[in-house]
Amino acid sequence: MEYVIFGESHGPAIGVTLTGLPSGLSLDMEAIQAELDRRAPGRSDLSTTRKEADVPEIISGVFEGKLTGTPLTAIFRNEDTHSEDYAALRYRPRPGHADYSGFHRYDGANDPRGGGHFSGRLTAPLVFAGAVAKQVLKLRGVEVVSHISSIYGISDDVTEHMPDLKALRGSAFPVLNPEKGEEMRQAILAAKEAGDSVGGSIECAVLGLGAGYGAPDLGQNVEGIFSKHLFAVPAVKAIGFGAGVAFGYMLGSEANDPFEVSQARVHTKTNHAGGINGGITNGEDVVFEVTLRPTPSIALPQESVDLTNGTNIELTITGRHDPCVVPRAVPAIEAAAALATMEVLGL
Amino acid sequence: MEYVIFGESHGPAIGVTLTGLPSGLSLDMEAIQAELDRRAPGRSDLSTTRKEADVPEIISGVFEGKLTGTPLTAIFRNEDTHSEDYAALRYRPRPGHADYSGFHRYDGANDPRGGGHFSGRLTAPLVFAGAVAKQVLKLRGVEVVSHISSIYGISDDVTEHMPDLKALRGSAFPVLNPEKGEEMRQAILAAKEAGDSVGGSIECAVLGLGAGYGAPDLGQNVEGIFSKHLFAVPAVKAIGFGAGVAFGYMLGSEANDPFEVSQARVHTKTNHAGGINGGITNGEDVVFEVTLRPTPSIALPQESVDLTNGTNIELTITGRHDPCVVPRAVPAIEAAAALATMEVLGL
Amino acid sequence: MEYVIFGESHGPAIGVTLTGLPSGLSLDMEAIQAELDRRAPGRSDLSTTRKEADVPEIISGVFEGKLTGTPLTAIFRNEDTHSEDYAALRYRPRPGHADYSGFHRYDGANDPRGGGHFSGRLTAPLVFAGAVAKQVLKLRGVEVVSHISSIYGISDDVTEHMPDLKALRGSAFPVLNPEKGEEMRQAILAAKEAGDSVGGSIECAVLGLGAGYGAPDLGQNVEGIFSKHLFAVPAVKAIGFGAGVAFGYMLGSEANDPFEVSQARVHTKTNHAGGINGGITNGEDVVFEVTLRPTPSIALPQESVDLTNGTNIELTITGRHDPCVVPRAVPAIEAAAALATMEVLGL
Amino acid sequence: MEYVIFGESHGPAIGVTLTGLPSGLSLDMEAIQAELDRRAPGRSDLSTTRKEADVPEIISGVFEGKLTGTPLTAIFRNEDTHSEDYAALRYRPRPGHADYSGFHRYDGANDPRGGGHFSGRLTAPLVFAGAVAKQVLKLRGVEVVSHISSIYGISDDVTEHMPDLKALRGSAFPVLNPEKGEEMRQAILAAKEAGDSVGGSIECAVLGLGAGYGAPDLGQNVEGIFSKHLFAVPAVKAIGFGAGVAFGYMLGSEANDPFEVSQARVHTKTNHAGGINGGITNGEDVVFEVTLRPTPSIALPQESVDLTNGTNIELTITGRHDPCVVPRAVPAIEAAAALATMEVLGL
Repeated sequence: MEYVIFGESHGPAIGVTLTGLPSGLSLDMEAIQAELDRRAPGRSDLSTTRKEADVPEIISGVFEGKLTGTPLTAIFRNEDTHSEDYAALRYRPRPGHADYSGFHRYDGANDPRGGGHFSGRLTAPLVFAGAVAKQVLKLRGVEVVSHISSIYGISDDVTEHMPDLKALRGSAFPVLNPEKGEEMRQAILAAKEAGDSVGGSIECAVLGLGAGYGAPDLGQNVEGIFSKHLFAVPAVKAIGFGAGVAFGYMLGSEANDPFEVSQARVHTKTNHAGGINGGITNGEDVVFEVTLRPTPSIALPQESVDLTNGTNIELTITGRHDPCVVPRAVPAIEAAAALATMEVLGL
Repeated sequence: MEYVIFGESHGPAIGVTLTGLPSGLSLDMEAIQAELDRRAPGRSDLSTTRKEADVPEIISGVFEGKLTGTPLTAIFRNEDTHSEDYAALRYRPRPGHADYSGFHRYDGANDPRGGGHFSGRLTAPLVFAGAVAKQVLKLRGVEVVSHISSIYGISDDVTEHMPDLKALRGSAFPVLNPEKGEEMRQAILAAKEAGDSVGGSIECAVLGLGAGYGAPDLGQNVEGIFSKHLFAVPAVKAIGFGAGVAFGYMLGSEANDPFEVSQARVHTKTNHAGGINGGITNGEDVVFEVTLRPTPSIALPQESVDLTNGTNIELTITGRHDPCVVPRAVPAIEAAAALATMEVLGL
Repeated sequence: MEYVIFGESHGPAIGVTLTGLPSGLSLDMEAIQAELDRRAPGRSDLSTTRKEADVPEIISGVFEGKLTGTPLTAIFRNEDTHSEDYAALRYRPRPGHADYSGFHRYDGANDPRGGGHFSGRLTAPLVFAGAVAKQVLKLRGVEVVSHISSIYGISDDVTEHMPDLKALRGSAFPVLNPEKGEEMRQAILAAKEAGDSVGGSIECAVLGLGAGYGAPDLGQNVEGIFSKHLFAVPAVKAIGFGAGVAFGYMLGSEANDPFEVSQARVHTKTNHAGGINGGITNGEDVVFEVTLRPTPSIALPQESVDLTNGTNIELTITGRHDPCVVPRAVPAIEAAAALATMEVLGL
Repeated sequence: MEYVIFGESHGPAIGVTLTGLPSGLSLDMEAIQAELDRRAPGRSDLSTTRKEADVPEIISGVFEGKLTGTPLTAIFRNEDTHSEDYAALRYRPRPGHADYSGFHRYDGANDPRGGGHFSGRLTAPLVFAGAVAKQVLKLRGVEVVSHISSIYGISDDVTEHMPDLKALRGSAFPVLNPEKGEEMRQAILAAKEAGDSVGGSIECAVLGLGAGYGAPDLGQNVEGIFSKHLFAVPAVKAIGFGAGVAFGYMLGSEANDPFEVSQARVHTKTNHAGGINGGITNGEDVVFEVTLRPTPSIALPQESVDLTNGTNIELTITGRHDPCVVPRAVPAIEAAAALATMEVLGL
């Protein structure tokens, strides 16, 4: 299964083309919509007020409610766009955004309205694709779970038992510790109040994958495959598997996961490896954490340049923006993880 | 340019096949050997005593000292192998190693001697491939530099001026602060003394890449391409670009890199983004840090299982091992970064 | 540049997603529509009476009339569908069609209406993609030309000067010899009259490609790349480059193309190699001929089976069908050739 | 499974790197050598007198006689090379060869000795790779068979029952009709006598593949996958599936393969489609024919140019060459077909 996400934030529509899907699977459209609703904006005081229906129109690849196995394209029409907000920014790159790098990449021809092809809005087709992948994975007993592990340095509780995260599935702000969650929300609202934004992290696990998938080789190791899919989610800037960066502080005798036989099954007593050794799954939960940068769009004035005349300017961004992308990124991270898992499984 | 690394630690040879190379480049074999020598074991009290000449035999793709442009294969004959050290481990997986995951992946058919295809020895052909890539990149003014940024929690100095790292190129233990370097060495020797090992991290930068390479899309974003190559280096378990995991602790107003015009050139005052916005290079140095787990092979007894009868056992690993893989991994990380840069540039 | 064609003949729409396009090119929509009109049905007594507007809706990848460089999706809404014609055929495979092979491939879940994803209608997005490719190629002085080289064994004149074919560009039935063309048309009408169909061939040339593109290696040789794109056009069953199958009847002294210097330029006196030696272009026109099978849909009764009960049946196909696909396939073959040329050029 | 063939005719060695192999298969080295012996030169009056042992040295990927599942590299050392034969040809391209196109492709840096990377000698590693593939396919009941279908216009008998070709497996000159075979041999010897060469064709079939493999889409259709592998065999210039070019002369009522139920199994009465409909296997034998051009190396003087000064010259090629590549190409065509089948099956 492969996918291509297309579209611009203020173009006619955005969407995704999926190839290599299995044939015959009855598509649960309600489950797909539920995933999309987790991502949709305008539903809380933590997110932008832009309203989008986020209802996919399936163009191909589904017949009588089932996947045909031929390419599936779904599109989401763009509505409620305020393009005038962005016209002035075309040659005045916003710090932290892809305006400047994109200007060079596309020779100034890319659509600047609403972030164009770089918009976080393109996570809608990603979530759609991930929701389809989740239904395929479910048939093999594989599930993806996650929680917000930190916002602006405020950390959620740590769990070593990832299936606990299943209980958070319905939540718009999934945390294990509600008090920590409230602290995080306050940090987000404080940043919003200050015209600023905050970053954070999401921990995600793939359950039920089994041992023996992946390979140590380039393009086939599990960490590399997950990274490929995860870094395609806007704002992700770091990823660690299992203990992640903490491995740098550890002794081998602490880091190594001891094996034991328990209930006639070999497993490891700890899971510092995040379920992966030598690029191959070892049968434990595949666990990783991604760090997301603070929303680059902030109301505070910032230093920029005018590309038309090469002068330094002060820039103030208007428009509607999330003060923290982390809560709405949760379903996108899960989607990317589900799509990565498909690749790991060779599906 | 693509590459496939092949071979097993105690097989006839290891090597690499490179395709898509440019034609006509005069290959600087001394420069290649210098890179290989940085990786070679048995040269200090910090590394295994296994001795390997690590001299490549070029089988194809070079004629009259120049790259032909057709596939280049180079092999390294294996010598000084002590296979008897490993025979007993075949069904007794070492914690932290790929023995168990590999057993499932390859149905028990993979070569268990010396780690087989999982051996750190396979970084020799990687370093060879990277050394070739560096010569291609040099023609475009692109360089790769790095330092050991931490060992067992002891951090090297931080620099915001990556070209400073060029001065460390010849070093077997490249750090900016020699005192910190000595602390790190002591931590490694202490771990060795204790029959244990330690992890650490390497910061690496690609200089001179220019703006406009990469894309936000799956498989094309710069972070994803680098991750693909970096996670194929054994022991790498985390990667962060620019501020990396610190983004999770930052405000947008801190994280965003302000633009300014200086000497008629647009650049950013800081480089928290690690030279990448929206998956595309922005013209600043591409900077990333990888975390490497402690060497899984330690002398201390560990808990394992006997796969032949499903019982818990105590395992003691003999043989020669580095107490910390970080110093010898430096050229491998640079090699992977050079190969990733080739892909980013479409070379 | 890569492309994925999606859609089913009687689904909501068909279309194509193109990635890797250059940025900044002003898209000539009239030229695109002209290509699509060459393919459109219902315009002569030689083709099906199904009417389709074949006007693309561009969903993404174009801004202010220019290619953005981000993924371009275009869709064609399906209209004038007579799905009831096909319902009875679901478990009664039509000889020569993909009904039976597709049934096995997609476990019976693919859309059977109007041939579903196998429909010749999917050449509309292919022609669209090819028309975009032609505009990119035009900037490099590369052109694609073709003619109907035979229908039911009636051959058009042979030319050794491929640029002559430029004059046929506007023609709905492009042949060098109008009398031969009239014979071909009569053969098609006779087949139609008899409730039957006929096959034929198309010769196509890429002009202006220059020497040195391609490689002998798997996946990179020019013949292989063209074949990959050409066999994805429905009904194509054979391809030959230059002298093609006639090489089997030749002596080396006849087959080899002698070199000569003429007007300070090296070229070959003949072009039996079709512009390709060792999988690499030699600077002469790249010339190939494809053979297309007769339209499988014929009005005559045929032998088939009922897959629901395993009995032999007589099958009569109703509906509207072209008695010969060759004339309308001409723009599709050119499109596939243009897309193959993009790949050969690394665009 | 993927493969990269490397090496130059007069370099240290040639070889192949195979990735994605299954683990655990006991490699039958005798069967591999038997395939290689079919290809080896110097064994009859029809081939070059160059002697090569063609014994592979396996570098990696095999342990205790079994495939490990990790990359397998095998090399063949080059011996009995007469490089002086070729030195004069470097800037005097041989008609019909890749000297001129390769000169442009590789900027004059490729190895010109003995055809370098373009040499027919590189079919040795191809045959090796194909022999490994055949052993994998055998486990699934899939076999590849072939015969010389024509030499210089002299055709072997036609069979509609491809398993008959199994009987020819041991033959150095596999034809169904020995008298026709003798005519072909005389044509080859006559060409040799005249300092000339002849072309011909090989018909090949894959038995036991089953229905439902492949897809109509770009890169996935069975004809395209086979073509990709087959055109990578030197000298192949045309390919047709089933009736191939004869489809151009047929009526739909002749071309369509009628279905029937026989012995409780659906099959087609004829196999004009070559076992493929809509790019997908239909359960009949996959049948194709490739045309090979006459050996470009002929003893007769030919017209060429001197690239160093742009003058027309007369060129006489010395050295040892096959007057017809077809007989020795048979195992290479089968190898490419086996490797294509692996890809079609997703192995």
